[in-house]
Amino acid sequence: MSAALDDLLTFLRFPSISTSSAHAGDLVNCAEWLKAKLIGMGLSAVLHPTARHPVLVAKNQHQPGRPTLLIYGHYDVQPVDPLDQWISPPFEPRIENGRIYARGSTDNKGQLLAHVSGVAATLAKYGHLPLNLTFLFEGEEEIGSPNLEPFLKAHRADLACDIIAISDTGMVAEGVPTFTYGLRGIACVELTVHGPSIDLHSGIFGGSVANPNTILARLVASLHDASGRILIPGFYDAVRPVQQWESDAWAKLPGGADETLALTGVPKLWGESGYSDHERRWARPTAEVNGIGGGYQGEGSKTVIPRSAFAKFSFRLVPDQDPADILEKVSAHFKAITPDSVRLEIKIGHSGKPYAMDPDSRFGLAARRALSRTFPREPALIREGGSIPIVQSFRDILGVETLLLGLALPDCQAHAPNENFPIGNFEAGILLNQALLEEIASA
Amino acid sequence: MSAALDDLLTFLRFPSISTSSAHAGDLVNCAEWLKAKLIGMGLSAVLHPTARHPVLVAKNQHQPGRPTLLIYGHYDVQPVDPLDQWISPPFEPRIENGRIYARGSTDNKGQLLAHVSGVAATLAKYGHLPLNLTFLFEGEEEIGSPNLEPFLKAHRADLACDIIAISDTGMVAEGVPTFTYGLRGIACVELTVHGPSIDLHSGIFGGSVANPNTILARLVASLHDASGRILIPGFYDAVRPVQQWESDAWAKLPGGADETLALTGVPKLWGESGYSDHERRWARPTAEVNGIGGGYQGEGSKTVIPRSAFAKFSFRLVPDQDPADILEKVSAHFKAITPDSVRLEIKIGHSGKPYAMDPDSRFGLAARRALSRTFPREPALIREGGSIPIVQSFRDILGVETLLLGLALPDCQAHAPNENFPIGNFEAGILLNQALLEEIASA
Repeated sequence: MSAALDDLLTFLRFPSISTSSAHAGDLVNCAEWLKAKLIGMGLSAVLHPTARHPVLVAKNQHQPGRPTLLIYGHYDVQPVDPLDQWISPPFEPRIENGRIYARGSTDNKGQLLAHVSGVAATLAKYGHLPLNLTFLFEGEEEIGSPNLEPFLKAHRADLACDIIAISDTGMVAEGVPTFTYGLRGIACVELTVHGPSIDLHSGIFGGSVANPNTILARLVASLHDASGRILIPGFYDAVRPVQQWESDAWAKLPGGADETLALTGVPKLWGESGYSDHERRWARPTAEVNGIGGGYQGEGSKTVIPRSAFAKFSFRLVPDQDPADILEKVSAHFKAITPDSVRLEIKIGHSGKPYAMDPDSRFGLAARRALSRTFPREPALIREGGSIPIVQSFRDILGVETLLLGLALPDCQAHAPNENFPIGNFEAGILLNQALLEEIASA
Repeated sequence: MSAALDDLLTFLRFPSISTSSAHAGDLVNCAEWLKAKLIGMGLSAVLHPTARHPVLVAKNQHQPGRPTLLIYGHYDVQPVDPLDQWISPPFEPRIENGRIYARGSTDNKGQLLAHVSGVAATLAKYGHLPLNLTFLFEGEEEIGSPNLEPFLKAHRADLACDIIAISDTGMVAEGVPTFTYGLRGIACVELTVHGPSIDLHSGIFGGSVANPNTILARLVASLHDASGRILIPGFYDAVRPVQQWESDAWAKLPGGADETLALTGVPKLWGESGYSDHERRWARPTAEVNGIGGGYQGEGSKTVIPRSAFAKFSFRLVPDQDPADILEKVSAHFKAITPDSVRLEIKIGHSGKPYAMDPDSRFGLAARRALSRTFPREPALIREGGSIPIVQSFRDILGVETLLLGLALPDCQAHAPNENFPIGNFEAGILLNQALLEEIASA
């Protein structure tokens, strides 16, 4: 365990921020380190360059007649801003009260390395694995995996498998094994409202020209009614209603509204009326403005009408919403309500379909057994609010379902300052992966 | 003239940005240079420190029985961002096609130095001035002159005068002498919407918590109806209607809608229906968002719900609106419509009352004669959309009206990148100030 923890600390020191081109070299270094680690365990490993960040594929000696498990993870991380809110530097891992604080500790390096360390432990114990294993690690998950689909298509035979496992989701509470059978999809779009050709003096011109900040705000405000229901025409058309067994099961889970209130620190929750906190976050779509900006950003005031203003949106989607259809509806909505006193620019970003699989399938049951052996108690069956678009790509291209065996806790602060991962969950993950190899092999 | 132009280029090289505390030393250096210049002309000059940037007062030998003219100007300038939109560095003046390009060239250093150079020319010609002159130059106009009112109160006797002149406004068109008898006031306020205690993962929490960007946008969008009329309860209560003679006179002026369209480059004008472009910009109040920001500002996307979002507002006010009353109504409006799922912070900024004086008064007529002699044609009588709150302070504290004899053209890009000032207007300003001294002396 001490060696595995040392490995994790080393892994976390690579500032592998995929969205920033300045960090491209750090991603290569990080992937090279991981490759060397896998080769050291006795696996074969190949680093495949892509248009942006490389994909790492590693395998044991595959033998006919055994099931093939593909384990996916990503070695890239989110940006770190606002940096001033970190208690310690994001790429200098710090251990405090049994948790490791670092960018990527929970999303996804800690969970990725639990897979790797579980496999290493099995290899150390038996000298071989009970099944055919393929590791597939990419460096572009946080930017929407633009090069992974082409990679899957180009390496379909090499990546052929019976089932896929990913630990990039959460546990509903500490000590509660959790099996995630559904994920929200995502569709991103950025708007820029262009007004005057230069920033204008708001005293001289104010009253006669549209302020891009104002128009942008009107566009943003058009998305929701006061209770959070989305007003884009047709937005809910394909939404699969929450099933009764889901509502019933989720109502019994730990967490929910009180925990969300405590974790987020908001004065009061806000959301679509008629739905529980779990339903709102797991099974209902959203429209979020992740960033907004325009005009003077500095100290004090500067009385301008800015030349432009932007907003970055992400829509979380649920089965059976289709990202392409939603992006079309969103674009049509914004175009329809933008006044002709400004020019609207719409930039379509990354997207991924929502996902749902059958938790009672052959490998679904195997995964639930592995979870029960590790913790040990019956796993909670949940959906999750985040998006792992690659899960849908696996289904589409490789024709295989994905087992989501997350190890993150609700307060691990993924994507936020002071991201952290409990060492206990890392240890449990190593045990879980050993059990998983056995349960899949015998399923 | 060549010496006056050299002086102006030197004056423009001081990066005297008053809003940035990093530039405090540059403001002192700039004021010291100006003081030395005035002493060199034979005036007495004193630099008075304030809590922030110094005030410069200079005089000739005052004699009883002559009218006293106080000329006001400001040596501070607006910030320069967005810097990447400047064709040449803002503090390295460049002359092209008869215009000087530099931050402050038109607002206000060029116009201030036209006063100074006109006085210098009269002194050079006659050895003395025909009236009592006081120069009052401050370094805080662009941040709302926080220390000038206290200074006026403390130096009431020293600054006693019969009339005040300022060149910090515009000409309606090239070659059209312009007398401004009214100004809009201003009231600034900044909102911060505080949501979660940290930036949240929008997949995990989206749907259950209010996004500060969304709430902020809803607040901004609440300010106007689709045509630009302001919806804050009571906002228009004290607005003095545009007079018929004003509408008639302004309809005959050059400029207006076509020019505003050409100058701003917007696809189409936008504003309160039922009013002309001149009326909208000069005689109707506005609500502008000068800056808005929240969440991820970088390249690509980052799927967060930000912990907070801000908007910086300035309201332009017209007679007889009162800034304190408006700020109260604005604050009450925002508080009333903010949901309790976020916390609203309201920071009151600087403000200044709107202004109007009688263009047919004794000194009003003298100023109009000086304008007619310089150009020569009848001056246009206008109001302006910008704010010079100090004009109201002069009336309140010194009990004196102000003559606004602006030299800026509509395309001088005050407050914007590539601010510029025509050398011809600088020369005309020097002549105008010589005529003004004579007309005021004999009024």
